[in-house]
Amino acid sequence: MRELLEALAAGELSPEAVESRLRGYVTSEAGRLDTARTQRAGVPEAILATRKTAAEVSTLVDTSLEGTGRAIVTRADPTVTAAVEQQYAEDPEISVNVDDRAQTVVVRESSFESPDLDATVGLVTAGTSDAMPAGEAATILREMGATVERIDDIGVASLDRTLDQVPLLREQDILIVAAGREGALPTVLAGLVDVPIIGLPISTGYGHGGEGRAALSGMLQSCTALSVVNIDAGFTAGVQAGLIARQFDKIRE
Amino acid sequence: MRELLEALAAGELSPEAVESRLRGYVTSEAGRLDTARTQRAGVPEAILATRKTAAEVSTLVDTSLEGTGRAIVTRADPTVTAAVEQQYAEDPEISVNVDDRAQTVVVRESSFESPDLDATVGLVTAGTSDAMPAGEAATILREMGATVERIDDIGVASLDRTLDQVPLLREQDILIVAAGREGALPTVLAGLVDVPIIGLPISTGYGHGGEGRAALSGMLQSCTALSVVNIDAGFTAGVQAGLIARQFDKIRE
Amino acid sequence: MRELLEALAAGELSPEAVESRLRGYVTSEAGRLDTARTQRAGVPEAILATRKTAAEVSTLVDTSLEGTGRAIVTRADPTVTAAVEQQYAEDPEISVNVDDRAQTVVVRESSFESPDLDATVGLVTAGTSDAMPAGEAATILREMGATVERIDDIGVASLDRTLDQVPLLREQDILIVAAGREGALPTVLAGLVDVPIIGLPISTGYGHGGEGRAALSGMLQSCTALSVVNIDAGFTAGVQAGLIARQFDKIRE
Amino acid sequence: MRELLEALAAGELSPEAVESRLRGYVTSEAGRLDTARTQRAGVPEAILATRKTAAEVSTLVDTSLEGTGRAIVTRADPTVTAAVEQQYAEDPEISVNVDDRAQTVVVRESSFESPDLDATVGLVTAGTSDAMPAGEAATILREMGATVERIDDIGVASLDRTLDQVPLLREQDILIVAAGREGALPTVLAGLVDVPIIGLPISTGYGHGGEGRAALSGMLQSCTALSVVNIDAGFTAGVQAGLIARQFDKIRE
Amino acid sequence: MRELLEALAAGELSPEAVESRLRGYVTSEAGRLDTARTQRAGVPEAILATRKTAAEVSTLVDTSLEGTGRAIVTRADPTVTAAVEQQYAEDPEISVNVDDRAQTVVVRESSFESPDLDATVGLVTAGTSDAMPAGEAATILREMGATVERIDDIGVASLDRTLDQVPLLREQDILIVAAGREGALPTVLAGLVDVPIIGLPISTGYGHGGEGRAALSGMLQSCTALSVVNIDAGFTAGVQAGLIARQFDKIRE
Amino acid sequence: MRELLEALAAGELSPEAVESRLRGYVTSEAGRLDTARTQRAGVPEAILATRKTAAEVSTLVDTSLEGTGRAIVTRADPTVTAAVEQQYAEDPEISVNVDDRAQTVVVRESSFESPDLDATVGLVTAGTSDAMPAGEAATILREMGATVERIDDIGVASLDRTLDQVPLLREQDILIVAAGREGALPTVLAGLVDVPIIGLPISTGYGHGGEGRAALSGMLQSCTALSVVNIDAGFTAGVQAGLIARQFDKIRE
Amino acid sequence: MRELLEALAAGELSPEAVESRLRGYVTSEAGRLDTARTQRAGVPEAILATRKTAAEVSTLVDTSLEGTGRAIVTRADPTVTAAVEQQYAEDPEISVNVDDRAQTVVVRESSFESPDLDATVGLVTAGTSDAMPAGEAATILREMGATVERIDDIGVASLDRTLDQVPLLREQDILIVAAGREGALPTVLAGLVDVPIIGLPISTGYGHGGEGRAALSGMLQSCTALSVVNIDAGFTAGVQAGLIARQFDKIRE
Amino acid sequence: MRELLEALAAGELSPEAVESRLRGYVTSEAGRLDTARTQRAGVPEAILATRKTAAEVSTLVDTSLEGTGRAIVTRADPTVTAAVEQQYAEDPEISVNVDDRAQTVVVRESSFESPDLDATVGLVTAGTSDAMPAGEAATILREMGATVERIDDIGVASLDRTLDQVPLLREQDILIVAAGREGALPTVLAGLVDVPIIGLPISTGYGHGGEGRAALSGMLQSCTALSVVNIDAGFTAGVQAGLIARQFDKIRE
Repeated sequence: MRELLEALAAGELSPEAVESRLRGYVTSEAGRLDTARTQRAGVPEAILATRKTAAEVSTLVDTSLEGTGRAIVTRADPTVTAAVEQQYAEDPEISVNVDDRAQTVVVRESSFESPDLDATVGLVTAGTSDAMPAGEAATILREMGATVERIDDIGVASLDRTLDQVPLLREQDILIVAAGREGALPTVLAGLVDVPIIGLPISTGYGHGGEGRAALSGMLQSCTALSVVNIDAGFTAGVQAGLIARQFDKIRE
Repeated sequence: MRELLEALAAGELSPEAVESRLRGYVTSEAGRLDTARTQRAGVPEAILATRKTAAEVSTLVDTSLEGTGRAIVTRADPTVTAAVEQQYAEDPEISVNVDDRAQTVVVRESSFESPDLDATVGLVTAGTSDAMPAGEAATILREMGATVERIDDIGVASLDRTLDQVPLLREQDILIVAAGREGALPTVLAGLVDVPIIGLPISTGYGHGGEGRAALSGMLQSCTALSVVNIDAGFTAGVQAGLIARQFDKIRE
Repeated sequence: MRELLEALAAGELSPEAVESRLRGYVTSEAGRLDTARTQRAGVPEAILATRKTAAEVSTLVDTSLEGTGRAIVTRADPTVTAAVEQQYAEDPEISVNVDDRAQTVVVRESSFESPDLDATVGLVTAGTSDAMPAGEAATILREMGATVERIDDIGVASLDRTLDQVPLLREQDILIVAAGREGALPTVLAGLVDVPIIGLPISTGYGHGGEGRAALSGMLQSCTALSVVNIDAGFTAGVQAGLIARQFDKIRE
Repeated sequence: MRELLEALAAGELSPEAVESRLRGYVTSEAGRLDTARTQRAGVPEAILATRKTAAEVSTLVDTSLEGTGRAIVTRADPTVTAAVEQQYAEDPEISVNVDDRAQTVVVRESSFESPDLDATVGLVTAGTSDAMPAGEAATILREMGATVERIDDIGVASLDRTLDQVPLLREQDILIVAAGREGALPTVLAGLVDVPIIGLPISTGYGHGGEGRAALSGMLQSCTALSVVNIDAGFTAGVQAGLIARQFDKIRE
Repeated sequence: MRELLEALAAGELSPEAVESRLRGYVTSEAGRLDTARTQRAGVPEAILATRKTAAEVSTLVDTSLEGTGRAIVTRADPTVTAAVEQQYAEDPEISVNVDDRAQTVVVRESSFESPDLDATVGLVTAGTSDAMPAGEAATILREMGATVERIDDIGVASLDRTLDQVPLLREQDILIVAAGREGALPTVLAGLVDVPIIGLPISTGYGHGGEGRAALSGMLQSCTALSVVNIDAGFTAGVQAGLIARQFDKIRE
Repeated sequence: MRELLEALAAGELSPEAVESRLRGYVTSEAGRLDTARTQRAGVPEAILATRKTAAEVSTLVDTSLEGTGRAIVTRADPTVTAAVEQQYAEDPEISVNVDDRAQTVVVRESSFESPDLDATVGLVTAGTSDAMPAGEAATILREMGATVERIDDIGVASLDRTLDQVPLLREQDILIVAAGREGALPTVLAGLVDVPIIGLPISTGYGHGGEGRAALSGMLQSCTALSVVNIDAGFTAGVQAGLIARQFDKIRE
Repeated sequence: MRELLEALAAGELSPEAVESRLRGYVTSEAGRLDTARTQRAGVPEAILATRKTAAEVSTLVDTSLEGTGRAIVTRADPTVTAAVEQQYAEDPEISVNVDDRAQTVVVRESSFESPDLDATVGLVTAGTSDAMPAGEAATILREMGATVERIDDIGVASLDRTLDQVPLLREQDILIVAAGREGALPTVLAGLVDVPIIGLPISTGYGHGGEGRAALSGMLQSCTALSVVNIDAGFTAGVQAGLIARQFDKIRE
Repeated sequence: MRELLEALAAGELSPEAVESRLRGYVTSEAGRLDTARTQRAGVPEAILATRKTAAEVSTLVDTSLEGTGRAIVTRADPTVTAAVEQQYAEDPEISVNVDDRAQTVVVRESSFESPDLDATVGLVTAGTSDAMPAGEAATILREMGATVERIDDIGVASLDRTLDQVPLLREQDILIVAAGREGALPTVLAGLVDVPIIGLPISTGYGHGGEGRAALSGMLQSCTALSVVNIDAGFTAGVQAGLIARQFDKIRE
C-alpha cells in the first residue's frame, strides 16, 4: 500500500487511479460500491419479503428502482404483490412482472437494460410442489441474463420419464435439480450426465426427515458429486448457477 | 374366560383343553413357551454378541444348543468367533458355520432339522460396505428356511447395472434392498418392480446425514412405498422377510 | 441389447416383441407406462391434497379419472372434499366416496372395475387419535382389493384387551399396527403372534419424543422384528401391505 | 429473621436455638452440614470414577472413609477396582465389597453402622445388558438400607414371563424398571400393577433411537404414568427410590 | 396354571375363585377390568381434549360418568369447557368444576364418593407460566384423594424466597417441582431437603433449549437425584405422586 | 454463624448489624430484598408479555410501578401495547414510552429517577430483521443508564460498509453485535477491534440452520473470542452489557 | 421407441445405430459403460479406503489399474499407503504418488495419459486443519486435468490477509473455499469477488456446532450465494469443480 | 477515501499519515499487523494442540517465540508437553511452564515482558471435572495480565458452600462460572451478585443432555442474565474476560 501512496504523493499516479486500485478492498461510501458490484457482477440485489410488511417492501422496491432501475422481490405473498402492483399501476415508465407460483415480483424502469448471457441453465423439477423454489431460481436466472430451460415433472418413481430427458439434460451448461421427499433425483441424474448439478432440496414430506431434511441430507450424502444449497433456497441456487453462467459467457465472448 | 372355567368345572372340558385355550394368552413356565413359539414360528432366537464377552457368548450358545439344537450368533468379532469355534472343535456332533463378512456364527447339532420354506427373498446390495448387515439378513433367512437370492453391486450411480437386474428382481417373492449414503436404491427399484421392498439403511457416509441417517430418513420419505428397518438392522430385515416368506410357504403348501 | 436388436434386424423377432422386452427398462412415452404400471401392479396413484388448493386437486382428480377411471385423494380437508363432491354432484356416472376421519376421497366411474385380492390385512389401532392414518391405510388397501379387518381400541395400558384379540390377529395374512405416544403396541403384539407386522407410528404426544418421534424410534428399536413406515404414513403402510397381499393373492390363484 | 435475632439479643432464645432455626437455611462451615445432611437423609455421597484416575479415586475413598466411615464408588473399571482393593488389603478394620457387573465398590470401616429401612424396592430388568445400571441402583439402595427384590429377565417380547411376575411386583413398595431398546417394559407393567414405577432407560440399541434414546423418549411418552431418570442413571434411580423408601420407613416406625 | 384348573375340575375351587386368581393376568371382558383397576388403584381415567372436538369430548364425558360416576377432562380449551358446562347445566345431580388456568374440567354425579388419602403432596411452581401443568397435577392429585400444598412463586433467581420455604417443603410427603427455562429449581431444592422430588419441566423459553427442552435435559442431568416426567406433563406427575401417596396412605391406615 | 449470634446475645452486636451480615445470604421477606437488589444492581425487573393476556400484563405493570416507580414490558404485541397506553392515558403523573420495532413499553412515574452510567455500549445490527432483539437490548440498556450507540446496516456481504465503521466501533466500551442467517458479523468484527463483543444471534433464515440456529452455533464456534446469548435474547444481551457498563461506571466515578 | 425398432426391422437403420441411440438410456453390459462414462466425463473413479483393509484396497487398486491405467485412493491411512507403495515397488511401469496430508494415493501406469483442462480452480484454506479435505480436492482436480491454485492460510480473524488475496481470487475460474469452526470465510469472500464459490465445511471445532456442523449450517444460511458440499467432502467439492472446469475447457477449445 | 488520497496528492498529508489512517482497514503485509494487534490488544495467539502432532506443535511454538517472545499451547496431552519441554530443556533463556490439569504449556523468552492489568477475574468451579477448561481460562487470563481469583468446589447441591462465597464473589470485576451436568450454578450466582457472569459449560454428564449439552442450553435459557461460551471453551471465556479486564485497566489508569 505504501508504494501506491508514495507514487500518488510523487504525482506518478492520480488519486482516481489509486482509489481504483485500493477500492478492491474498501470504500468510504458504502452504497455506491454495492451498486458498482451489482453491475460488475450481474448479481441483482433482491428483497426478501418474508417478515416484512407490504409497506416496507414497497419502500425497498422504490429505493432499488432509484439505485439500479430494477427491483426483485422474493417470497411475495398476495398482499405484498398487490401492493407493489398498485404502487406502479399508473406509471407508464414502470413495468411490473408477477410470477404467482414463484412468489416473485420484478419491477423495471423502461430504461433498464437487462443483461444477456450466452449460457443455458437446465432447471429440473419433479412436480408441482417444487414450483416456488424452482420459480425463484428461474426468475433470478433470467434477471441475470441466462437462458433457462425448464424440464418439469420427472421423478425417480417413474424412471422412464427421467431417462427420456437425458439427451436434453446433456445439452445444458449447468443443471439445477430440485427434489423433495427423499431427494434422489439429483443423484440419479448425476449418474447419467456429465453436466455439473446443483441440488435444490424442497421442503416437502412430513414426519421423520420431513420438510426437506431428508432431501438435504440425501443430497449431501450422494454417492455421486453434487453441490447443494439450503432447503427451498431457489434464489441461492439461481444466483450460483447464474455466476457460473457468467463465467461461461465471458469465455464465449 | 368364565365360560371356559365353568365348562371345566362342569366336566365338559378337560383341564388340558382349557389350559390349551388359555395358553394362547399366558403360561406359568416361561422358558417352555419360548421354545414352543420358536418352533411354531420358525423364528430362531439369536445371540447378539455386542457388549458381551467371548465367555458369555459361549455360555449362551451352549444353552441355545441344549434348548433348540441350534445357536445363532450375530455381530461376532474374531475373538468371539474363535472362542465358539474352539468350544466345539472336538465335538463331531456339532457343526460350526462362520460367515466372516456377515459376522455371524451358526452352530448346529447333527440332529437338528433345518426348516425349508417354498419362498425366495431377493437381497440387493450396492457394494462391499453393505456386507455385514446384508450377510446378517442372509444368515437368518437361511436359518428360517427361505431361499436367498443375492443381487450385489447395483447402485443408482450406475443405473444401467440396476436396470439389467430388473427381470431377476421381479421373480422374487419379496425384496430386501440395502443402501447406504443417500439410500436412493430402494426408491428407484420400487418404481420399477411391483414386488414389496423392505429398505435396509446402511451406516455408511460421514458428515451431515452420515452413519446411515440420510439413508434412513430418505427411505422413510420415499415417494414410493417402502417399509423400513433401522440402520444396519440386517437381522430385523431378515426376520421380517422370513415371516412373510413363511406366509407364502403356508399358502403354497 | 445388441443381440435383441440384431434378432430384430434379422427378422427373427418382431418390433413388438423387442419393444416388449426392452420396455422392462424404459419407454419413450412416459404417461402410458405409468398407467400400465398402475394396472399391472394394482397400486393406484393417489393425490396428496396437502399444500394444494381445492382447484388444483379437482383438476388432478379429473385427469386421474380420465386415465384410470378412478381417483384417490388423501389428506383432504373439508374444503377440498366439498369441492370434489360438488364437481361430480350432477354426474350419474361418477360416484364419490368420502371418509371424513380418514380424510380420503375416492372417485370412480361406474365402469371402473375394482380389483379383488384373496388376502386379509389386519389393521390394529389403539384409539381415536389413530383414525386418520389408519383410515388412509384402510382406504388404499380396499382400493387395491384387499380385505381389511379393523381391530380398534387395543392398547398396552389395558393389556387384557390386547390379549383377547390374539386369536383374531393370528388369522390375518399380515398386520398393520398403528400406535402413538411410546408406540409399544406393535412390539407387544409381535411377541404374541407370528404374523408379519408393519408398524405405523402416529403423531400423538407432546414434549420430548412427541409428534410420533418416540413411537417411530421405539418401533425401529423394537426387540421383536418389525418393519416400519414414517410417522402418520398410513398410505405407505397400506400400499406396502397391499403389495404383500397381492403376492398372497397370486399364489392362491 | 429480625425477630429471631431480637429474641436472642433479649436473651429469650439461646444462641444454639437461634442457630438451629437459622441453620435450616445456611451454615458458614460447609463441610459439616454436608455430613449432617448425609446422616440425616441417609443418602450417601458417591464417587463417580468416570474420567478419574485410580489414584484420584483412591484419595477420594480415603477422604470419604474418614468423614463417614464408608465410601461408595460407581462406574469403577477393573483398574480402579484393583487399586481400591489393594489400598485396604492389609487393613483388617476395612472391608471392600466389589460388584463387577454393577461396577461398584463399597468400602466400610468395621465400626460403620449400615442403615436399615423397613421398605422394599422391586428392581426389574429385561436382560444382561441392564446389569450395570441396575446393579448400580441395587448397590445404592442397599447402602441406603432398603431391601432390594431383583426380578430379572422379563421382557415384553415374552409377555407370559412378564405376566407370571405380576403378583410379586404387586408386593413391592415401589418399582424401578430398567429397559433398553424400545423401552416398553415399564409401560406394560404400569398397566398391570398399581405400584409407582420409576423407569430406567438403558443405553442399548444402535442406529436411530439407539444408545437408550428410544427408551428414554418412549418412557417420557408412556400412555401410563411413569417418572423417569436419565439413560443408564441407575444411581439416580436408586437414590430416588431410596428417598421414597425412607418416607415409607418413617411412617412404618 | 394347570394346578388351578385341575383344582377347579376336581371341584376344589369354584369357577369364581379360579377366575379371580387368573384375572391377575387377563380378562375376556375388557371394559369391566378397566373399571375394576380404576377403583382398585384410585387412578381415574382422564380425557385428553387435545385434537378432539367439543362434541367428541362431551360424548366421552358421558361415557365416563356412566361407568364411574366421574369424568376428568384435561387440556380443555374454552370451547370444550363451555360445551361440557352446558351439557350438564340443567342436571341437579351433576356438578361441573372448571379450573381455567389448569385447563381441567371435573364432572361428578352427586352420588360419587371421592377418595381420601392420608398423604400430602407439595406442588412447587416458579411463576405464572407454570399454571397449566401445575394445575393439571393439582386436579388429578385431588381427584386421587391426596392433599395438595401449593407453594408458588419461588425461583432460583430470588434464592431467599426459595430458602424461606424450606421448612414447609420438608413437611411434605413428596414434592412435585415445576420449572421452565433452565429448570434449576428442582436441583436446588433437592440439595436442601430430603423429601423425594419429581421434576416437572415447563415449556417456557425460546431459542436454543426453548419450549422446555433445557429444563428437561437439566433435570435429567441434575447433580442431585430427581425423577422426571415429560415437558408440561402435569397429569403424569400428578398420577405418579398420587400413586406414591396411596402407598403412604396404605401404610398409615 | 455461631460467633455472630453469640456476639449478639452478648450485646456486642446489635440485631440490625447481625441481620445485615446474615442478609448477604437470606431474608425472610422476599419482596423487600428483590427491590433492594434492583436498586443496588440497577437491573430493572421486566415483564415478558409472551403468553400473557393484556389484562395480566396491565396488572403486572401496576405492581411494578408501585414497587419501583417504573415498569418495563418486552415482547409486547399491539394489543398489549394499546392496553398499557390506555391504562395510563388520563394520568398526568405517568409517562408511557412505546418502541414498536423493539416491542417494548416503558412506563414511568414522574418522580422516577433514571440511572445514568458513564459508559457507552455499541449496538451493531446488519439489517431490519434484527430490529426487535436489538431494540429490546437498547431499551433495557437505556433503562439501566448506559449510553447506546446504534451502528446499523453493516453486514459481511458488504464488507466495505463494515470496515468504514471500525473507528467508531473502537470507541465503545463494549459491543453487542446482532446477526442472523450465518451470523458471521461478530466474528469478523472481533478480528478487527479489541473491544469485547457479546454476540446476539437473530432468528432469521429458513431450512437447515434456520431460525437463528446457524447464527448461534457459528458464534459459539467463532475462531475469535465472543461470548454469546440465546437466539433473539436482546434483553439478556442488554442486561449483560449493562452490568459490565455499571462496572465501568463504578471505576470512572 | 417403436419407431426406432421398426426402422431397424425395415433395414433403415443398422443395429449399431439403434443401439447407439438407445444406449443413451441403458446398456446390458454394465462395466463397459462405466469405463466409457469415466473417459467421456473425465471423472475418475476413486477408492474410498475408509473401513477397508489394506488388502481390500490393494485388490481394488489392481482392478482399477487394469481397467483404466490409473487408481486413486482417498482417506488412506499410513498402513494402506504403505501396502499400496510396496505392491508396486518393484514395477518400473507403475508410479505411485502419495500425498500424506491429503491422505491420497495415485497410482499410474506409464502409458496412462493424464487429461489436461484449460481451466483454473482456486482452492482456499484457512489453516492446517483443512489440509486433508483440501488436499483431497486438489488431488482429484489435478487428476481431472484442472490447474489448482492453492491460496492457504487466510481466515476471517485476520481480515487483512484475506483482502490481500482478493485480486488473485478474482483470476480463478471457480473457487473452492474450505472453512471449519464457524465457516465464515466463504461468505466473506463471496461478498468480495464475483467468482462462483463452492463451500467446503471442515470438521473442526468442539461442543455445540462442532465437528463442522456450524460451518455447514453457516454456509447453507449464507447471506451471499454459495453452493455447498458435505463436511470434509473434499473429493466431492473437487469433482464438482472439475466438472465445471471441463465445461470451461470445452468452450475454450 | 478520495479526500485522503487527494490530500496526499496535494502534499497536505504524508504517505505515512495516509497509510496510517487507511491501515485501520487493511494492510498488505498480513504478518506485521497481526503482531501489532496482539501487542495492542494484549490477546496472545495460542496454539491449539488438538489434531496436531508433537512435531507440528513444536514448530509452531518456535515460530511464536520468534515473533512475540512467548508461545501458549492449549489442549496439550503428555506427549506434546514432553516434546515442548525437551525442546527447550537446554536453553537457559527459555522458561517452560506446564499446567497438567489445564493442559496448557507457556513458553517464554527471558526478555519477554508480561502484561499486567489492574483487574480481577473470579473463576468459579464446582469440582474436579471442571479442571481443564477452568485451567485453560486461568492460563490465558494470567498471560493477558489479569489477576485470577480461583473459587473452587462450590456447587448448587451444597448451597450453603455457595452462599458462603458470595462476599468474595462480589469483590470481583467479572466472573467466569464453570458448571457441568445441569449447569445451574451461574444462574444461582447471578441471582445473588451484581457482577457480570460469563457461563462456561463443562462436558460432563452422560445420556440425554450429556457432554455439556444440558449445561449449555440451561445457561442460554437462564432466567437471569448470563453470556455464555461454548462447551469446554475455557480459552474463549478467558480471552473474553481478559478483554473486559483490559477495559477496566484502561479506565483505572
